[in-house]
Amino acid sequence: MEILLREGKKSDMPAVLELIKELATFEKESEAVEVSVEELQRDGFGPNPSFRVFIAEIQGKVVGMALFYERYSTWKGRSLHLEDLIVNEAYRGKGVGKALYAKVMEYAHLRNFKRVSWEVLDWNKVAIDFYRSTGAHIVDGWQVVHMNEVSLNKFVSNA
Amino acid sequence: MEILLREGKKSDMPAVLELIKELATFEKESEAVEVSVEELQRDGFGPNPSFRVFIAEIQGKVVGMALFYERYSTWKGRSLHLEDLIVNEAYRGKGVGKALYAKVMEYAHLRNFKRVSWEVLDWNKVAIDFYRSTGAHIVDGWQVVHMNEVSLNKFVSNA
Repeated sequence: MEILLREGKKSDMPAVLELIKELATFEKESEAVEVSVEELQRDGFGPNPSFRVFIAEIQGKVVGMALFYERYSTWKGRSLHLEDLIVNEAYRGKGVGKALYAKVMEYAHLRNFKRVSWEVLDWNKVAIDFYRSTGAHIVDGWQVVHMNEVSLNKFVSNA
Repeated sequence: MEILLREGKKSDMPAVLELIKELATFEKESEAVEVSVEELQRDGFGPNPSFRVFIAEIQGKVVGMALFYERYSTWKGRSLHLEDLIVNEAYRGKGVGKALYAKVMEYAHLRNFKRVSWEVLDWNKVAIDFYRSTGAHIVDGWQVVHMNEVSLNKFVSNA
């Protein structure tokens, strides 16, 4: 089966949201997905898009996607962040994930990004081993902190 | 001593780079800083800036800064990432850090960002306790992965 990789379009967002929900379910967080197709279309395809996405297609069907955006490292400079790389369960083990991964790395390389970053669940040994085999490394000692919308509203109201 | 908070300007970048280097030294990574004043000026002040920065001033001197940019959560939508919040050592304990932190949260709130994220060293208990006291939470179970420039070049050349 041939894998076609291409830029995502506005009309891909329903399929992209399905993949996002599939990953959230795998991570046991299905309730956490609050974005809608309309928000993805507005945020990804305006004059100042918040993200870009590559789509993997097999026989006309969207089977995977990689969603990424620019970040900035005060040590290295412009960097790319891979927010999600998702392959539909029925299409795993066919090289779709590796093809998307390579596409993102090539994109970052061609545009002179100084780093590509992403996050992985610490129990996902298969993923971690794959990333390491490609030259990436796990950054020890750092923890991610979130201020969610409810806490943000509360903090600002009390300030 | 009055703390003045304001938007960073191109001419602040030498002072900002000094603060970045001060933090890197604190984190025992002084060699890791590769950005230059010229890169910060180019990347932060073009038509499509890669970051924004708030400056804290005391008696005309830059004593702290908070550098941030937009990210995108596929669960929540548009979010803000606080890359660095740094106060010069001689000016700690005067509320400069808290003032910058509150300024960033207010900025995120006013622009309807769905989340503010950042990273903290896992041994920095004072910082973690402060973040928690403001309603933020440490996200357990995720690890940060980096593909640096050298590994990226190698991976793409071999692909």
